[in-house]
Amino acid sequence: MLLDRSFEEIKVGDQEVFSKTFHESDVITFANLSGDQNLIHTCEEFASRSQFKKRIVHGMLTASLISTVFGTLLPGANTVYLSQDLRFLAPVYLEDTVKAVVEVIEKKEEKRTLTFKTQVINQHGQVVISGQAKVMKAVSLLATA
Amino acid sequence: MLLDRSFEEIKVGDQEVFSKTFHESDVITFANLSGDQNLIHTCEEFASRSQFKKRIVHGMLTASLISTVFGTLLPGANTVYLSQDLRFLAPVYLEDTVKAVVEVIEKKEEKRTLTFKTQVINQHGQVVISGQAKVMKAVSLLATA
Repeated sequence: MLLDRSFEEIKVGDQEVFSKTFHESDVITFANLSGDQNLIHTCEEFASRSQFKKRIVHGMLTASLISTVFGTLLPGANTVYLSQDLRFLAPVYLEDTVKAVVEVIEKKEEKRTLTFKTQVINQHGQVVISGQAKVMKAVSLLATA
Repeated sequence: MLLDRSFEEIKVGDQEVFSKTFHESDVITFANLSGDQNLIHTCEEFASRSQFKKRIVHGMLTASLISTVFGTLLPGANTVYLSQDLRFLAPVYLEDTVKAVVEVIEKKEEKRTLTFKTQVINQHGQVVISGQAKVMKAVSLLATA
């Protein structure tokens, strides 16, 4: 799905959500893609002796779901990512289902920018990542192409 | 490679770098993994009519390389990611080679935390992502396991 919400129709308080269950294959794919082969992600034996007791999902993979909301739902097409703050509050384990929730908290007409409260929440209702983001909704050039 | 730098030996000013060239396959893999199928990443025709003129790499995929340095090089094993601020300053295109550079700017003994200046720089020397991060170097439990 790829929405294209116009800047004009977006208002403070608007929310969107994207959910995903992380499987072992996702973590292995991301470890290979990013190069982050830390054993806390890739080795059950190592992880069992760590403070987390089990393998955890890469924080940046979990955080990516926030970006997915921006890129596909709100604002969707022609979104330009300007900034993102992330606080990693709790681990995400394999087979956890998390949802990225974004909410517009500020809108600046002149620069076409939107500030969002961004959270990722697990299946127990626990906030695992919190932060804020700023994006710009670029003017579509398609109509004049 | 997975280093395990002890907290005691890490000092302010220490740096590490991780480099990667992003190919089309990386972007497609990340689009499928994260769900961010925005056409600016996946469709050359769409991208050619955008302000970027060409397809760009997902910002969070580029940012992941910062996390890779923490997870594999500095501090390496038993790193706990606490926070990361990201400012996306310039686009990264397919076949660009970028390097994530992290530098210790603060060390707090009592909580075993390290604050880093974090940057991603492209092959032209341009900073494409800037920010700061905080990580904790957990005490390894392996010795007592």
